[in-house]
Amino acid sequence: MNIVITGGAGFLGVRLARTLLAQGQLSLAGSAPQTIARITLVDRAQPPADLLVDARVATVVGDLTDLLRPGIAGTAAVPADTQLAFHLAAAVSGECEADFDLGMRSNLDATRALLEACRALKTRPTVVFASSLAVFGKPPGQVLPEVIEDHTLPTPQSSYGVQKFIGEQLVADYARKGFVRGRNVRLMTVSVRPGKPNGAASSFLSGMIREPLAGVRAACPVPADIPVALSSPGRTIEGLIRAATVSDTEWGPLTAMNLPALRTSVGEMAAALGRVAGTAATDLLDWTPDPAILRVVSTWPGNIAATRARALGLLPDTDFEAVIRDYIRENPDAIRLPVQP
Amino acid sequence: MNIVITGGAGFLGVRLARTLLAQGQLSLAGSAPQTIARITLVDRAQPPADLLVDARVATVVGDLTDLLRPGIAGTAAVPADTQLAFHLAAAVSGECEADFDLGMRSNLDATRALLEACRALKTRPTVVFASSLAVFGKPPGQVLPEVIEDHTLPTPQSSYGVQKFIGEQLVADYARKGFVRGRNVRLMTVSVRPGKPNGAASSFLSGMIREPLAGVRAACPVPADIPVALSSPGRTIEGLIRAATVSDTEWGPLTAMNLPALRTSVGEMAAALGRVAGTAATDLLDWTPDPAILRVVSTWPGNIAATRARALGLLPDTDFEAVIRDYIRENPDAIRLPVQP
Repeated sequence: MNIVITGGAGFLGVRLARTLLAQGQLSLAGSAPQTIARITLVDRAQPPADLLVDARVATVVGDLTDLLRPGIAGTAAVPADTQLAFHLAAAVSGECEADFDLGMRSNLDATRALLEACRALKTRPTVVFASSLAVFGKPPGQVLPEVIEDHTLPTPQSSYGVQKFIGEQLVADYARKGFVRGRNVRLMTVSVRPGKPNGAASSFLSGMIREPLAGVRAACPVPADIPVALSSPGRTIEGLIRAATVSDTEWGPLTAMNLPALRTSVGEMAAALGRVAGTAATDLLDWTPDPAILRVVSTWPGNIAATRARALGLLPDTDFEAVIRDYIRENPDAIRLPVQP
Repeated sequence: MNIVITGGAGFLGVRLARTLLAQGQLSLAGSAPQTIARITLVDRAQPPADLLVDARVATVVGDLTDLLRPGIAGTAAVPADTQLAFHLAAAVSGECEADFDLGMRSNLDATRALLEACRALKTRPTVVFASSLAVFGKPPGQVLPEVIEDHTLPTPQSSYGVQKFIGEQLVADYARKGFVRGRNVRLMTVSVRPGKPNGAASSFLSGMIREPLAGVRAACPVPADIPVALSSPGRTIEGLIRAATVSDTEWGPLTAMNLPALRTSVGEMAAALGRVAGTAATDLLDWTPDPAILRVVSTWPGNIAATRARALGLLPDTDFEAVIRDYIRENPDAIRLPVQP
């Protein structure tokens, strides 16, 4: 089995590839486990060394819309033996809000190009599409339902959210037509992400933990009471893999499935940081508001029900302090402050 | 004021143009009435003679995606002085189900090209997008809510419905970004359409009235109890024009507004035909089922609430027999059977 991961050099793509390589096999859509012969990482950047040296890893570096030419079956990026594609590549929310055309190209055109490449194989590969809670947004002057369900009508308040929601529609229709097997998965805000800040409006939700633990100042550009729906990297990868493995019947509708979220707030996250690393960490937080970030983040709902995901046995993180301690254990080289046991 | 009508040589486009020309002026988005200086009809076909000879009518013949080149402001199809565009052009449901790529090009790509052309003007023209009740569909093995509200999550069961729903998302985001003023209007099944059958799965819902009145046999390819949500041509045009004239505040959310529908069934429609033209008409109906049409039409909901539209004073037709009699009065040359008073 060949598995394609777009955005395969990104944080989630790398973690997904490592997890799949470690397990060595995968049950695809309810069928018997198969050996993972190859993972094709498609990204504009090279993945890290541990993946490059793995004989099962192929890398294709470039832009998806350049790599995938309409009507051509079996390219380097989507080889003929592809049975599963995780589509994680995207321009992030802040970028898309600043550069509308970039978002349309990187998110809408690239998603369509990937679906066309999968369709051209004529083997009905499984496509797991990483959508986002950013499809939900509170329009000005309106209220959102108190609880966001899988079947709540998304009213995205960012171009990123619109593009993700359009991607869900395309995946559903390509699946309905039998061109692919479709899995629309809505990711929550992933925290704590290792590495560097990115252009996502939600980037600070990792930075406010990661940077202080490294002894570096970090922005908390929104009020402490802003609610957030979080998922740890581990839980997020678990959800993506589960989407690929369950049968069509278990998965259910072609509409998107919300992944489970830990309901918390920016203030509670800062308090958890304090419990882990004390005021030495929390004193590094800069609570100066940033209207551009607030405008996007404040439209996102905090209370997301994940009814379908729970029925698949997927559970949210229960405790953000434990998520921080997981991050510290997994990223020892990134920690500069003393950690309280 | 210049008004663009895509699909301007189609049945609805022609009727819309005639109505606008007759009223001579239009209040746009809550502003004072302006004289309609020009209506630009964009279509692959030529409009009828009465429009061609009107000095206020300009015609542009061609395919939207060919006529509109990205980044070029002020083309023949969307001139620089365009303040309002009605986007009616579309490949219809049956065509899109038979030819997926045609639908993606004619509906998704063309809608995006039109929005880009309007954005390029940098004058924030109003775009009235003709979406469709076909965004709603009953997925296999699932049930729809008993009443479809404006805010019900669409789960389209046809590529046409998916493409229309994506169009709604694009219009909403272009409007949110300030590129256009957006009006997403969901049209019900329009009946009785004059003229010839087309490739829409719903085509028979006009044909089953129009053809017998002309003395010609017609297909009723679904069971009599299939529910349908209908709107007369007059009510449909009224809804499109109202969308253009009301202010942003009156219009409300950028999500789509359902137009009001008459709740009826194929059997009740046939009965109304019988009351108007007797068994001479109903004996011309051929009730042989067509699985391809049934597959699409049976997923459409019959009970559609139009809460937002009613708040704008838009009302459904109340009586299909009256709709048939309107058709007869408006299309005397198409009637061959005697009509009962």
